[in-house]
Amino acid sequence: MSLHEHISNRKSALSFSEQVLADGVFIKLFEAARWAPSAFNEQPWRFIAARRDEPSFNIMLDCLAPGNQAWAAKAAFLVATLAKKTSSHNGAPNRHASHDLGLAIGNLTFQALEFGIHLHQMGGFDAQKTISLFSVPEDFEAVTIIAGGYPGDIESLDEPIRSRALKPRTRKELNELVFSGTFGESHPLFTHPSPTK
Amino acid sequence: MSLHEHISNRKSALSFSEQVLADGVFIKLFEAARWAPSAFNEQPWRFIAARRDEPSFNIMLDCLAPGNQAWAAKAAFLVATLAKKTSSHNGAPNRHASHDLGLAIGNLTFQALEFGIHLHQMGGFDAQKTISLFSVPEDFEAVTIIAGGYPGDIESLDEPIRSRALKPRTRKELNELVFSGTFGESHPLFTHPSPTK
Repeated sequence: MSLHEHISNRKSALSFSEQVLADGVFIKLFEAARWAPSAFNEQPWRFIAARRDEPSFNIMLDCLAPGNQAWAAKAAFLVATLAKKTSSHNGAPNRHASHDLGLAIGNLTFQALEFGIHLHQMGGFDAQKTISLFSVPEDFEAVTIIAGGYPGDIESLDEPIRSRALKPRTRKELNELVFSGTFGESHPLFTHPSPTK
Repeated sequence: MSLHEHISNRKSALSFSEQVLADGVFIKLFEAARWAPSAFNEQPWRFIAARRDEPSFNIMLDCLAPGNQAWAAKAAFLVATLAKKTSSHNGAPNRHASHDLGLAIGNLTFQALEFGIHLHQMGGFDAQKTISLFSVPEDFEAVTIIAGGYPGDIESLDEPIRSRALKPRTRKELNELVFSGTFGESHPLFTHPSPTK
């Protein structure tokens, strides 16, 4: 009854090896993403994908905040994730678009870890520039850019990135997150401190 | 190099057995959720959780669309998922709130499947009623209600739920989803039809 290792051991990647992704491996990441559930099966997710040897890689890298470019330049691939803002069945705003993209990225993350590939999702990028450079239509939002690849040597990273990579993850306790009956009242099963890490 | 079975075999649950969830199992679902990544480590996810023997279960059931109540009444638990609309570090709108909740639910889904528990996420519920009945503050959005439990016998479901449970899942092809350089231009690796199911 323990947490799956892909959940308990996952960290946002800051180091990447030189190893490139085989075509079949790269394809499978998106194959995992597309089987996520979505409201009305809208599948609001779209991806702009670039492996390091593709011209788009440097264009996308240039959309990242400078602090992210510093380590993401060594990633094996970058992916811009997009969410369709309106529902195809009625044209109305889809309030689950971004949430359902998150579900797809959950799948992609898990499948990547199955392959020994780790990821780092970034909100720190210029969404307007990304939309412009990749001709993203008005009906889509640029939500994140993800860097990914096989793990590199953390010890050889420059400071302060090395220290950041070694820092343990922290999270709120479950009693701050899981309520019963009324918002803010902890569910009786969820005590402080959380029983498991 | 195949998809993980929790991705390739997952379906939105419509049938549940009478089996209840042990405390430790129920806790671990949320433990999985809380280790998801989020922008600025905001952890915008909150949950109102009710197992079938708790008074909140029927209150939450009553928030669902009638078509969902028909099968969700037999779930072992219901969970309302909430996203914090603003960022704690600066009070500004958090445009990743709903997306990051999706990542947490991706973790929860995967951990549930590890335990043999299946889920059904619903957008079909009365969000305003949920917010009111569970005293959810203004700063939080009610995004989904999730039903979950151990699988029941699909063949014993009433029609049309039985037919719905037996229907194969369908998804867009990868060449409609993964682009290269310009939005709408399929990445050369992603051909139609998709190489794998």
